[in-house]
Amino acid sequence: MKLLIPQEKLKKGLNIVEKISSKSLTLPILNNILISAKKNFLNLSATDLEIGVNWWVLGKIEKEGELTIPAKLLFNFINLLPDKNVSLESKGNNLIIECDNYNTQVKGLSAEEFPIIPKITEGESITINSDSFCQNLIQVVDIAVPSATRPEISGVYFLFQKNLITIAATDSFRLGEKKVFLKSKTSLEKDYSLILPQKTVKEIVNIFGEKKGDLRIYFSSNQIMFECYMEETPHPEIQVVSRLIEGEYPNYQEIIPKKYTTQAILNKNDFLNQVKTASLFSGKINEIKFKIDSKKNKINIFSESSEVGKHESSILAKIKGDPIQISFNHRFLLDGLMTIKSSEIILELNGDSGPGVIKSVGDETYLYVVMPIKGN
Amino acid sequence: MKLLIPQEKLKKGLNIVEKISSKSLTLPILNNILISAKKNFLNLSATDLEIGVNWWVLGKIEKEGELTIPAKLLFNFINLLPDKNVSLESKGNNLIIECDNYNTQVKGLSAEEFPIIPKITEGESITINSDSFCQNLIQVVDIAVPSATRPEISGVYFLFQKNLITIAATDSFRLGEKKVFLKSKTSLEKDYSLILPQKTVKEIVNIFGEKKGDLRIYFSSNQIMFECYMEETPHPEIQVVSRLIEGEYPNYQEIIPKKYTTQAILNKNDFLNQVKTASLFSGKINEIKFKIDSKKNKINIFSESSEVGKHESSILAKIKGDPIQISFNHRFLLDGLMTIKSSEIILELNGDSGPGVIKSVGDETYLYVVMPIKGN
Repeated sequence: MKLLIPQEKLKKGLNIVEKISSKSLTLPILNNILISAKKNFLNLSATDLEIGVNWWVLGKIEKEGELTIPAKLLFNFINLLPDKNVSLESKGNNLIIECDNYNTQVKGLSAEEFPIIPKITEGESITINSDSFCQNLIQVVDIAVPSATRPEISGVYFLFQKNLITIAATDSFRLGEKKVFLKSKTSLEKDYSLILPQKTVKEIVNIFGEKKGDLRIYFSSNQIMFECYMEETPHPEIQVVSRLIEGEYPNYQEIIPKKYTTQAILNKNDFLNQVKTASLFSGKINEIKFKIDSKKNKINIFSESSEVGKHESSILAKIKGDPIQISFNHRFLLDGLMTIKSSEIILELNGDSGPGVIKSVGDETYLYVVMPIKGN
Repeated sequence: MKLLIPQEKLKKGLNIVEKISSKSLTLPILNNILISAKKNFLNLSATDLEIGVNWWVLGKIEKEGELTIPAKLLFNFINLLPDKNVSLESKGNNLIIECDNYNTQVKGLSAEEFPIIPKITEGESITINSDSFCQNLIQVVDIAVPSATRPEISGVYFLFQKNLITIAATDSFRLGEKKVFLKSKTSLEKDYSLILPQKTVKEIVNIFGEKKGDLRIYFSSNQIMFECYMEETPHPEIQVVSRLIEGEYPNYQEIIPKKYTTQAILNKNDFLNQVKTASLFSGKINEIKFKIDSKKNKINIFSESSEVGKHESSILAKIKGDPIQISFNHRFLLDGLMTIKSSEIILELNGDSGPGVIKSVGDETYLYVVMPIKGN
């Protein structure tokens, strides 16, 4: 292998693939990046066996070939080089790197040991807008939490339909659901219901979140592939392939309330600030009490801890329905409020023990369901 | 105690004193801030028994008194309040805080238990410029490291003289020394040679580093006090008192070379970058080799690790004296280069086993001494 590539481009590619490489003690080859030169393209690949990534760039390929090099070292090293042409040449399992007045030899491992990153070449696919899709993922991804006993809820749920993508995540105390209505109908012939590892969703946001243009999603029975393209060509620039989490996602639709007994519309930032302040006095079970007064159009917020002290504040709101006293875990409330983008929120409650719902005013596509602390 | 103070001012004061309060399990009162109201002033104090801080502000004092309140909680709480007037009122050992629509009661501890923060009222003092003095401290403070066996070098050394302040720090492998020449002679009648805890020096930089105007330093046999003033008044705004480290600071002047066998003048950022790059291949003892070629006016930089690979680069320099091959620990070199502000540096060497010196071109007030790795 021998090739020439500008440092700036190589740095960009390494920045994408390096994060996917793992820190595996049992399988050291996974700490490496596969560098391969073929036809006019340099291809960098990395995988942790759950996710795999491929990145391509046009380069001056003098001799085809491939080699794997420790990811972190290569990333750190290339980042420090000046923005000039970098020459990469393999000599056995060593990579000779030359750039300006730098002359370096890095020990690698044979490409033969590197696992094959699968591709999905058959089956259905859809094309959506890259950056706006990732914005939707950000709203729900952090709600999922690792769970050894219920691996299915440690992932993020997706339902792809002809003109709608539904994304949901839960940790069984709270749930976020985002609906993405597609402007033009996709050619999908059937629905795809699947669970992605949380790490995959985070990496998708990292990798494609700033990308303008198309993102193509390919479906298969146990994998998914995301792909974007080099400018003005049909050649892929980045491919991310991930395994899916097996199992049935809980039928969460059942717990989303269809109605409410009390509704309040209020300013998000003021409420967020008051919940944060009250949280300082909420004690060990994180409990904050709310008294929703539909006559005075006011919510009183209380918290008390035998160690720290007690706190009370109030916020004006447009309130409909029954007056109510209810308790929430402040962490779950704060997490939900953080995912809301609008300045006004709708809070819908169902008695003091039914699920509460937080929504944006003027945005019906997102909702956050949170269970109250019972027994007050 | 009862008083009124704008949230913005209270926040500013807490930001200064909160950092000094400690996280003590054995002496819980040290986790608290002492709040006291006297005449027209609100005074906040904190101490960890090594350093003490006092901060004053003019406030509307309705009733004099004092109380201590957990520092972290008060800091977090006041930060979240709106920028309006805050009312503080003591009721027994509780503090009632009212602001806008917030009503809070925080549990405190009696002020009687709070340790007295000493003041230096006698003896000599000098006045210097606050922010520029702190800039000098930044250059050397990180060179000191905690040492149980040699507590004196875990601090920063100061020598105050009539028209010169000398500041030095070492960890016995390297040394930084800054000389601050005072424009006008101080009235000091004798020299003050003392060792400050590293934490004190860092806090001085945090607290006074952004302050324009005068900083007054008071000396006593086992303590030092730093003081700045409220705008256009002789009333102190902030006082920091610290104990000194006992013991004799090593006579470090002896190891600063008075001459050199090889001198190189070169670009700092290029050199810094090449040392960083070489450090990736430097192996377990952090060794980087330098070949200084006075004929070619060039420095070659080598590193090699049996695990990672090998690396070579070169940099042009103006070189005088003997050609030489020498090894340094890259961490010590990098730390030294980071403390240099100029774009060009002077590197002075004394054979392959004598101490090397790094200086700024055009600034004789700072020098960094570093020992080579011997036996190459």
